Amino acid sequence: MITTLLSLALAAGAALQDTVRFTPTVQQPTFAVREPVLRVRPGTVLVSQTHFGDYYTEAGGAFPGEVGPILVEGATVNDILKIEIIRVHPNSKYAASNIRPTFGGLTTDARVRLLNDPTPTRRYLWVLDTLRMVGTTKLVGSSMPNISIDLQPMLGRLAVAPRGQEAFAGLWPGDFGGNMDAPELKPGTTVYLPIFHDGAYFYFGDGHARQGQGEVGGTGLETSMDVILKIDVVKGKTIDWPRLEDDRYIMVAGSARPLIDAFRLAHVELVEWLEEDYGFDRWDAYVLLGQVAESSVANIVDPIYTVVAKFPKRFLPPR
Amino acid sequence: MITTLLSLALAAGAALQDTVRFTPTVQQPTFAVREPVLRVRPGTVLVSQTHFGDYYTEAGGAFPGEVGPILVEGATVNDILKIEIIRVHPNSKYAASNIRPTFGGLTTDARVRLLNDPTPTRRYLWVLDTLRMVGTTKLVGSSMPNISIDLQPMLGRLAVAPRGQEAFAGLWPGDFGGNMDAPELKPGTTVYLPIFHDGAYFYFGDGHARQGQGEVGGTGLETSMDVILKIDVVKGKTIDWPRLEDDRYIMVAGSARPLIDAFRLAHVELVEWLEEDYGFDRWDAYVLLGQVAESSVANIVDPIYTVVAKFPKRFLPPR
Amino acid sequence: MITTLLSLALAAGAALQDTVRFTPTVQQPTFAVREPVLRVRPGTVLVSQTHFGDYYTEAGGAFPGEVGPILVEGATVNDILKIEIIRVHPNSKYAASNIRPTFGGLTTDARVRLLNDPTPTRRYLWVLDTLRMVGTTKLVGSSMPNISIDLQPMLGRLAVAPRGQEAFAGLWPGDFGGNMDAPELKPGTTVYLPIFHDGAYFYFGDGHARQGQGEVGGTGLETSMDVILKIDVVKGKTIDWPRLEDDRYIMVAGSARPLIDAFRLAHVELVEWLEEDYGFDRWDAYVLLGQVAESSVANIVDPIYTVVAKFPKRFLPPR
Amino acid sequence: MITTLLSLALAAGAALQDTVRFTPTVQQPTFAVREPVLRVRPGTVLVSQTHFGDYYTEAGGAFPGEVGPILVEGATVNDILKIEIIRVHPNSKYAASNIRPTFGGLTTDARVRLLNDPTPTRRYLWVLDTLRMVGTTKLVGSSMPNISIDLQPMLGRLAVAPRGQEAFAGLWPGDFGGNMDAPELKPGTTVYLPIFHDGAYFYFGDGHARQGQGEVGGTGLETSMDVILKIDVVKGKTIDWPRLEDDRYIMVAGSARPLIDAFRLAHVELVEWLEEDYGFDRWDAYVLLGQVAESSVANIVDPIYTVVAKFPKRFLPPR
Repeated sequence: MITTLLSLALAAGAALQDTVRFTPTVQQPTFAVREPVLRVRPGTVLVSQTHFGDYYTEAGGAFPGEVGPILVEGATVNDILKIEIIRVHPNSKYAASNIRPTFGGLTTDARVRLLNDPTPTRRYLWVLDTLRMVGTTKLVGSSMPNISIDLQPMLGRLAVAPRGQEAFAGLWPGDFGGNMDAPELKPGTTVYLPIFHDGAYFYFGDGHARQGQGEVGGTGLETSMDVILKIDVVKGKTIDWPRLEDDRYIMVAGSARPLIDAFRLAHVELVEWLEEDYGFDRWDAYVLLGQVAESSVANIVDPIYTVVAKFPKRFLPPR
Repeated sequence: MITTLLSLALAAGAALQDTVRFTPTVQQPTFAVREPVLRVRPGTVLVSQTHFGDYYTEAGGAFPGEVGPILVEGATVNDILKIEIIRVHPNSKYAASNIRPTFGGLTTDARVRLLNDPTPTRRYLWVLDTLRMVGTTKLVGSSMPNISIDLQPMLGRLAVAPRGQEAFAGLWPGDFGGNMDAPELKPGTTVYLPIFHDGAYFYFGDGHARQGQGEVGGTGLETSMDVILKIDVVKGKTIDWPRLEDDRYIMVAGSARPLIDAFRLAHVELVEWLEEDYGFDRWDAYVLLGQVAESSVANIVDPIYTVVAKFPKRFLPPR
Repeated sequence: MITTLLSLALAAGAALQDTVRFTPTVQQPTFAVREPVLRVRPGTVLVSQTHFGDYYTEAGGAFPGEVGPILVEGATVNDILKIEIIRVHPNSKYAASNIRPTFGGLTTDARVRLLNDPTPTRRYLWVLDTLRMVGTTKLVGSSMPNISIDLQPMLGRLAVAPRGQEAFAGLWPGDFGGNMDAPELKPGTTVYLPIFHDGAYFYFGDGHARQGQGEVGGTGLETSMDVILKIDVVKGKTIDWPRLEDDRYIMVAGSARPLIDAFRLAHVELVEWLEEDYGFDRWDAYVLLGQVAESSVANIVDPIYTVVAKFPKRFLPPR
Repeated sequence: MITTLLSLALAAGAALQDTVRFTPTVQQPTFAVREPVLRVRPGTVLVSQTHFGDYYTEAGGAFPGEVGPILVEGATVNDILKIEIIRVHPNSKYAASNIRPTFGGLTTDARVRLLNDPTPTRRYLWVLDTLRMVGTTKLVGSSMPNISIDLQPMLGRLAVAPRGQEAFAGLWPGDFGGNMDAPELKPGTTVYLPIFHDGAYFYFGDGHARQGQGEVGGTGLETSMDVILKIDVVKGKTIDWPRLEDDRYIMVAGSARPLIDAFRLAHVELVEWLEEDYGFDRWDAYVLLGQVAESSVANIVDPIYTVVAKFPKRFLPPR
């Protein structure tokens, strides 16, 4: 299997000496400047996995933390961290989607705590067929005893250490990336993250075999993943919010609360991107967004919410 | 041309005697119980157009109101109004996208009025090729002098008269439909609206040759449209919010402010729909939405905002 | 009693011929341009009452609407309506505070509809001693069987007809005043309202023998009131939002949703008032507000919320 | 001067051996578990001051951090930290109120970044007369060249270390207290804070010679302070949010974003307090709040906002 992974990594254009295999063992509960678990050079293809944990077994257990921090040598606060997501593939027999009283998008909010009765605590187990890439419920007696859905694996979390001495628990997204929970964080997407500390202190984790927009119930198909990422640095350029790119879109992931603020700042940074790199006048870009923008409400369940603003590449001028 | 439209109407399965041609002449500035401009029977295919107005000419002028109200005979408050959108096709040479200081999603809000300088007032004109279905800017000297985008015509407004004696200006969406500004309101979509007054008092208008998600700049490609709608009634059933259906999705359009409330109520009504019509347990539906829901932020510029929550039909159980 | 009221009216400086007694009989369910129930001249002292209704009896019943519209002769859209609140005094034996599942500030929101169980439906009756101005619960077996609170009567609603053809149900506040539910709307306060239609179309109603800030549970001590108001016009001046003034403060009542928007626009109009009438530089006023502003969250239960921003008069420069 | 402070401390009932004088020298930029700068026993009266810094001089400079963490011996996560604010008194000649483009309640928000031009950068200096307790502007040529306001000193920040490994920058309020910026944090108020780590790790700082509700412009009269606090522990009891008490009110300081959430959770915890300690039924307390609650929007400029919900003690039942 690892051979296959390395083949994939090589296929991605990495020289053999730039490929690093890393099996995580330490759980990191916060995004912050901590002692690195690994050091890599720019251009490294990392073959790794998200943490295994009892959460993904049939019996259930604690949710494992993310992998990191990984120090990227030569990355400075004047640069951008560039992560190419090459592979995110479930390596567990199960995925779990749990609901509980104090979490989730359509129920009593743990931060607001309305005066009503809460959502029940329930554990939903999905059996994964990672060959056919299908997940199926295993819920005898429920209203969806054997529903099957096609898998679309992604990583909920890609992060650098936040600015200053701040340390955010793993549930937080932000301008440092973090728990963005965006379905767009899938193989084929390149993620650009701002850097707040020399070395970047890169984190990843929170594999979802699939997740709906909004992550409405509070969890996706949570499972562990084999992961291949190419870690690189764009020198001498800075950004304010995570930027994403795939074959079809340039995108910005804005995170804030209330939701409208996440929506606005993602779109404002998208306008700025169109100004800076593609020669648009600010107000022209603004009007054009009114016609062609797409967006994805990534999550409305984390401490702050994430919206991905998208501009279709086919409307970009030739560079 | 009208012949073609009638052919289309007939192709939609309407008996000839059920097809009504109506050329609007009166502007209706509010959604409310007003004197009907037309009366139709359930099952009628309406061949009409949105109002022409100076707004769509090269010189520019006032924005015309919507068409209506149309009284639907036999429709009662215990029923649902069902509108099949058969055709929405630009019939003007131009579309216009205007920006101005006190409107738009990324700028000073007319309702909040921050202390900053405003967006400039600008008029963007698009030349429409309704054969090739392409719109092109006509903006000499701008940063996008001749950008072309493919047209995706839709209606911003489909409404019934709101409850009680309330009357909302044309910019408002709500549980009565109204100015939802959702790109999903396109040919091929069927819209179900609650009825608050016997006769329903149906309105439509606000053609957009195309509109991005969020209608970020405040306007889409505003233009006049030829319109064919089939107007029908579902007897003995009620809903709380507009429901939509096309080949791929069942959908709910929730409108509220703040944005998170629009998101929540659209998804809550979607959960209820899955419970009532498809046999899901409430919490099962909630968890499943966490995996497969899609959503569209339709507009963030109207007095209250609209979110369309979507459930892919391929995950519905056989009925 | 009426003699006393008239004495009060006269003491307020009204010539006898300018005093009008009016006993309301018609319920008005919306704020809008409707057939006036009364016409008065500027300078009129109106001796009236809020509607009686079964809601205030021990048995309970429907909530009566507000009084109006009252056409103010000579008032134009270029003027301000000026209302001096001279007397608001309970004239009922009872006040009622009801809670129910779909209304109230700390529970399931009727507009958001979370998935939780609702608040119970309960009726709380208060016995009013209008001589000692005390209200006492009459709740045998409850956790507050005979709690007494001092009365601070106020009017929840003072309004003009909203702009255009819009008609808002009685629960709505807005730039037209309406259901602001601000404890500041008490005897001794002068209220300035913008005018959107010649004649102003003034409304008042919704007496509260007392109401906490926020009207958290959804209702105050709802009761009927004897009311004396002086109705006047400030010619040739316009405002955007209701302004209030008493012995200690100049104030602005801003209404919007989300709450931060109500807060912001009330304070922004307060900054503008300080600029226009008191010679402050905009940014000086802004910084000074940071030191001396007070504010009252008037309601967080109506369709949009109301915040009253206050500037203490002792910090005003001599005019 | 110190002699006077000690006299005050002694007058507050402290035995001499329980009084600790501490002159802070280290700046702490985050609320988190860090190496303590001081260790005290429960019952200690702390005579100290907030950090001096160039920010408070006429020339201006960096804003100094808060004081702490102070480890409270014997305080555990099963206890409450109790802080009596005995004295907060300016010890500087100046206070400063600065505004800048990316901060403040009525302008471009640093987290949202609208597309408009920003607030100017300005420094407002106030000359403090700490005998007469008056602050006066020193702004030749401005629109308020010599306005005087009476001082009402307070501490913007009282905190324990937040839960887990999280570390929040000094601008953050939260359930750990932090930068609540509530004018209620004044001499005579007792503050109860939850404890998330044994030892509590107490912080204080951010003296305001006066601050308006909302801290609208983004800063109060920022200055350094002589401070006397009695630090104690309530054993065997826990709370979820900071609770305050003075002669007139029991209060809860809730912090969240959006503002309505801060309002709601402060009031919900106030309902719970009335249930737990005063025998109220939940819904009785809820309805009573509708009549007698007061509240203070403490700040609307920090990363999350703070609302203080207040229940007047005169309506409490005899305990």
